[in-house]
Amino acid sequence: MFFELAHTDTQTKARAGWLHTDHGDIPTPIFMPVGTQGTVKTLAPRNLEEVNASIILGNTYHLYMRPGHSLIREMGGLHRFISWPKAILTDSGGFQVFSLKELRKIDEEGIVFQSHLDGSRHKFTPQLVLEIQQYLGSDIMMVLDECTPYPSDREYAQKSNELTLKWAAEAREIYANWQPLYGHRQFLFGIVQGSIYKEIREASAKALVDLDFPGYAIGGLAVGEPKQVMFEMTDFCTDILPEQKPRYLMGVGMPDDILNAIERGVDMFDCVIPTRNARNGTVFTSQGKMVLKAARFKKDAQPIDPDCTCYTCQNFSRAYLRHLYNANEILGLHLATLHNVHFYLNLVSQARQAILQDRFKEWKEETVKKITQVVEN
Amino acid sequence: MFFELAHTDTQTKARAGWLHTDHGDIPTPIFMPVGTQGTVKTLAPRNLEEVNASIILGNTYHLYMRPGHSLIREMGGLHRFISWPKAILTDSGGFQVFSLKELRKIDEEGIVFQSHLDGSRHKFTPQLVLEIQQYLGSDIMMVLDECTPYPSDREYAQKSNELTLKWAAEAREIYANWQPLYGHRQFLFGIVQGSIYKEIREASAKALVDLDFPGYAIGGLAVGEPKQVMFEMTDFCTDILPEQKPRYLMGVGMPDDILNAIERGVDMFDCVIPTRNARNGTVFTSQGKMVLKAARFKKDAQPIDPDCTCYTCQNFSRAYLRHLYNANEILGLHLATLHNVHFYLNLVSQARQAILQDRFKEWKEETVKKITQVVEN
Repeated sequence: MFFELAHTDTQTKARAGWLHTDHGDIPTPIFMPVGTQGTVKTLAPRNLEEVNASIILGNTYHLYMRPGHSLIREMGGLHRFISWPKAILTDSGGFQVFSLKELRKIDEEGIVFQSHLDGSRHKFTPQLVLEIQQYLGSDIMMVLDECTPYPSDREYAQKSNELTLKWAAEAREIYANWQPLYGHRQFLFGIVQGSIYKEIREASAKALVDLDFPGYAIGGLAVGEPKQVMFEMTDFCTDILPEQKPRYLMGVGMPDDILNAIERGVDMFDCVIPTRNARNGTVFTSQGKMVLKAARFKKDAQPIDPDCTCYTCQNFSRAYLRHLYNANEILGLHLATLHNVHFYLNLVSQARQAILQDRFKEWKEETVKKITQVVEN
Repeated sequence: MFFELAHTDTQTKARAGWLHTDHGDIPTPIFMPVGTQGTVKTLAPRNLEEVNASIILGNTYHLYMRPGHSLIREMGGLHRFISWPKAILTDSGGFQVFSLKELRKIDEEGIVFQSHLDGSRHKFTPQLVLEIQQYLGSDIMMVLDECTPYPSDREYAQKSNELTLKWAAEAREIYANWQPLYGHRQFLFGIVQGSIYKEIREASAKALVDLDFPGYAIGGLAVGEPKQVMFEMTDFCTDILPEQKPRYLMGVGMPDDILNAIERGVDMFDCVIPTRNARNGTVFTSQGKMVLKAARFKKDAQPIDPDCTCYTCQNFSRAYLRHLYNANEILGLHLATLHNVHFYLNLVSQARQAILQDRFKEWKEETVKKITQVVEN
């Protein structure tokens, strides 16, 4: 069994479970730190292990471009190449390709685009993105989809979804005779699209469920639509998706967004916020966000979060971290990233405990109140 | 006792000993990684500990400028501020100030200079640089000196050395009534100058020995003079300096330079080469230097050095490290720095073993032959 649903909260749709992969068991709900180019920026694999990361994300587009999936295959797959013993999810590359905007063109077969590195022309098809992910050897693979921009009119969303479903069916067929390269299992997720239109979302979800994927992602959200709409769509999709399959809300988000999506029945998350914000000097704490560069932390001998058990908080003051940012020292980026990833993983771990104890709603409300503040001192 | 001479090699002037500080015992010969701005670039303190660093260097000029020695005093001293439990040596700031060139002016009292950060005017005197180092709380402090540029004519070197000796005498007098701020001992080193003129070096060394410092540095070398001259001057100085005091050759150098200076009776070294070169993609191995970005390592599954026990070599291939450099990933800088600092500390540790076993000369010759090669595959 791949996904094991351990418990559903009695008051909400929040779920606790396990993803069983050949690179370890992943407790859900889970947050997946983003390792775009074969590294979660500034962190070594042992740092990810010390903050209890059980699965990280790799970007198919970036790894295809550099160093190339064939090279990674020659090196024995992505796990060995980056020296990461636990699970990896790779996206389809579609999201990155769509963000190239001027440089891409869609047809029935796939997406033609130009590299952001050297302008060379490439075409992502449902077949190719699966082959790339086969070479990478990720534990969880994603089908090629079109992530509709926001806003998209109903007609565009409808047509786009038809293409996404066509590609999903092609991918599912390939996956029916799947031969993994490295002896461990690879699970394929379908991606629900449909922009902000419930009837398209419904058609998308139902068609994908008919194709019987090992898991389902909810895509095309967190792309600019109002938060309320994002949650409404999420809620709507999780009502349709099967209980016994994992659900992954792609690219979400802020800590409170994650808790609000867990409440709506989502199991898996990824987002660059904890890592990117850390590099910009913004850290998350049990008492809210903190901008480390602020002058008020100049002589502050406290750690980022006095209640935090991470290496950064156990050893360094806000004053020292502020100094590292001011002096452009790489160590500051590393220490803040370590803290933020620890914060996210600790947050979903606490959410899981609260679900298992049927006190998720109350815990979530208290927690959201605290973590959405801004730390002033 | 601060310095304990354990053994002098029977065939050369190489020495093995201990520096006993209140932040631990330091085996000599020793290499001190450079932590310019309160961090050895890209490394956390626990990384320094794992590669057996027992003492690091901090730069008085940089820490005075940013975050300021008064702030560091408020934070409980440099050890606490940067969370480093072992020993720290701070330089006098003189070397950095001299490299400002256009922005400084020397008089009898000290050096007036303008900040490289904001152009503000400052004056380093023998008194002030000691006060700064008192606030920092380094285990080993350096007197203010003038590091003569190369080339300097005899007259300039002579006059400069007179000033350096005047400042050394003033510093020694202050140190006679020294009150450390944090309860641990601070040792003051005098600095032998004299450019490439033996009679000035001799006068400098003898005058400093008369002042009876806890230790002696050899300064004004590795500033552009031929290697042969550097070693000749080093050899000459260590013949004059007292056997029972530690000797520190400032700013040296490449791995083979360090071994050649150990042979001439030097105990302590610092240099930015292992850290700076790592960030440029050059690493040191038991078989020579290696430029990680080179195309020939593109598909090389070997670690940097198959004989190395560091975290980097135990976990990552040359191909992966090369990818990290190509993709501008910070992790590459960190992993290469960790390896290089490990290499340097392992090298001086091996030198110490060879000295203790009276086989230094033979070991050194073999080792220099290997480490001065360039690794091609």
